[in-house]
Amino acid sequence: MGEARETGAAALTLRIDEGLLGRLLDDLYAVGDYRPLYSDAWATACTLVEGWMKDAGLAVRRDAVGNMWGRIEGQGSAVVTGSHIDTVRHGGRLDGALGITAGLVAIRALIESRGKPKRPLELLVVCEEEGSRFATNFWGSRAIIGAIGSDEAHTVKDAEGVTLARAMRDRGLDPAKIPSAARDDLGAFVELHIEQGSILETEQIPLAVVSTIAGAVHLEVVVTGRPDHAGTTPMDLRRDALAGAAAMIQAVQSIAAALGRPAVATVGRVRVEPDQINVIPGRVTFTVDLRHADMAGRRALEERIRSLCATIASERGLGIEIGTLHERPPVPMNAAVRQVLERAATDTGVTPKALVSGAGHDAQVLAARCQVGMLFVPSIGGRSHCPEEATDPKHLALGTRVLARALELLAY
Amino acid sequence: MGEARETGAAALTLRIDEGLLGRLLDDLYAVGDYRPLYSDAWATACTLVEGWMKDAGLAVRRDAVGNMWGRIEGQGSAVVTGSHIDTVRHGGRLDGALGITAGLVAIRALIESRGKPKRPLELLVVCEEEGSRFATNFWGSRAIIGAIGSDEAHTVKDAEGVTLARAMRDRGLDPAKIPSAARDDLGAFVELHIEQGSILETEQIPLAVVSTIAGAVHLEVVVTGRPDHAGTTPMDLRRDALAGAAAMIQAVQSIAAALGRPAVATVGRVRVEPDQINVIPGRVTFTVDLRHADMAGRRALEERIRSLCATIASERGLGIEIGTLHERPPVPMNAAVRQVLERAATDTGVTPKALVSGAGHDAQVLAARCQVGMLFVPSIGGRSHCPEEATDPKHLALGTRVLARALELLAY
Repeated sequence: MGEARETGAAALTLRIDEGLLGRLLDDLYAVGDYRPLYSDAWATACTLVEGWMKDAGLAVRRDAVGNMWGRIEGQGSAVVTGSHIDTVRHGGRLDGALGITAGLVAIRALIESRGKPKRPLELLVVCEEEGSRFATNFWGSRAIIGAIGSDEAHTVKDAEGVTLARAMRDRGLDPAKIPSAARDDLGAFVELHIEQGSILETEQIPLAVVSTIAGAVHLEVVVTGRPDHAGTTPMDLRRDALAGAAAMIQAVQSIAAALGRPAVATVGRVRVEPDQINVIPGRVTFTVDLRHADMAGRRALEERIRSLCATIASERGLGIEIGTLHERPPVPMNAAVRQVLERAATDTGVTPKALVSGAGHDAQVLAARCQVGMLFVPSIGGRSHCPEEATDPKHLALGTRVLARALELLAY
Repeated sequence: MGEARETGAAALTLRIDEGLLGRLLDDLYAVGDYRPLYSDAWATACTLVEGWMKDAGLAVRRDAVGNMWGRIEGQGSAVVTGSHIDTVRHGGRLDGALGITAGLVAIRALIESRGKPKRPLELLVVCEEEGSRFATNFWGSRAIIGAIGSDEAHTVKDAEGVTLARAMRDRGLDPAKIPSAARDDLGAFVELHIEQGSILETEQIPLAVVSTIAGAVHLEVVVTGRPDHAGTTPMDLRRDALAGAAAMIQAVQSIAAALGRPAVATVGRVRVEPDQINVIPGRVTFTVDLRHADMAGRRALEERIRSLCATIASERGLGIEIGTLHERPPVPMNAAVRQVLERAATDTGVTPKALVSGAGHDAQVLAARCQVGMLFVPSIGGRSHCPEEATDPKHLALGTRVLARALELLAY
């Protein structure tokens, strides 16, 4: 307790430049609200951040896929913070950008107050996480753990048919060198991010330490009935694919709601055929995005949804096929890093909430090579991936302060 | 009774050429399964049918919009039969075509067996009923009752931006002459059509006399919620527009099913926004097609649907707007013509079912100018507006025989 109090007091002396944080966020957002991988806006943003890192005294290098690393030397495995520089289309000011700018402000504060770290301390600017241009995602973090397939750069394309390899070459990057981006000297990765949901705001808690990044499954459900004339087919003689799909969509919601947090299930896409005002739908295709904190919970959720949808189809004489589009396992955060983040929060005067991240983050990929942990600050109205994305400046400052203290605990 | 039996016996001596009926249907379908108004396929079909009418000894004329009338002279107001020559895209062999070909075969049989009629007898080939090319429908029958707006030909366009007026001129028709297509000398119009539903097949009844053409309302419902991240927004903090819309779609079905036949309500079109797999739908737009045999029933159906949708929206904190896209009143068939059709059926040896037509037909328009009535024969599997559209040949022959007998009762 005595030691905690002492380091807590020390943490209070770390001066975080809140004004700088706000200016960096504004400057990065001014580059563009859409910075897809290897685009002009992306390249401009990288150059901007590279300048900031050099100003802060970091040794900057770009790896084979365009991740940027700004380093202060030390002994042993590296302590890393940062986030992704790419955005979704019409994205907001904070997603990814906060992890980069807060990391920079935190490292500046540490250098200024504590000097050189014991362990190497690095700011990581991940080139891509969102998957908004190419039909892939986690491109940057997968390169770091050496998990990019040998032909992936040549086969994965954007909407215009440009391959990743071609887009890389246009930015002076050599696809053949992708394996060189892999790191095996990372110790810990901590990232500050916005929650992108409204749990913290609703519960009026300013900070969370992530316990797990939820596993997700994307299902595609195809319901088939019979496309009949809307005027001439009595209700009792119909096989209406949409009536069945509506019952299933209701069931998906109810099952997740009954299981309670952190289980979520969402029907986001619906396609009705023939989609005519006076024809009973003969075929409906919809997606289900379901997530849970652990594998057992996620499997139970998926199993209940599959089973209830099949029952509804059978009761109504409808055909049903359920396919899996995408699946990723839940990734628990490292227990030791979680403890450091909780202590850093306590030292900064707040009691953090333990929260499951429903969204995916680079930490879930980097967990394959190092100890990972994440901090969340509240999102106003839970909004994200849109221009309204915002966080109270005092929460941005608090998150940065806790991040700095955590880096201090890990690297000094 | 004695008289009925006598005329019944007389009806049996009317020879209907079933082979000719089948060949005419095949030849017309061979022109194309899509014969939109004023298209090449439409023009070819008109020329084909014009030849058939002349062969049958009818005096043929085309009116200002391209309806064709094949006439045998007589005294007083005309007795008319026929149907529309246009089709939906990928339509079937019978919709519209049956009314034209059966009318021709019936009139040939009458001329052969009974000679000249007392009243004028006409075969009407309606140029357009389906609304499949231009953003309008009942173009042909509306011209006959003088109900085409003065600028309609110049404002209504097809998907390529071609106006009705331009398409008319390309077929040698003068838009300025549209008013001349109006007729005020029509006595009765009877049409043989396929049911386009499965009530007759299900009840194993070979023929129906239509009691009413149902009124229809097309509603557009817009449900607004909040588009949040599918992974980060707990079920209890969502305002999911699709979850609400699914409950409404269920309610629409249940209300119509509870009211029972002939009430029907169909959600045929659904648009989800942003329609992304990992975003909770923020806005859902769907259509409701609702129909009932009488105005009071239809209003009650619409009122219940509007009220329950509003309640569901309110309970879930969703916005809702319900607009009316289209509305047409129910049209009862003429009582005297119904009696003639029932007697013609009885004379032919069948007891017809009285049926509400859920689909719209030219008869509902022509009812403004003359006494109208319709006969339905069963649709196999209830299928229509598709290549699978079919009717047992013995039902086609039966319908034609009853139609011929009805024309005899009306015109001879």
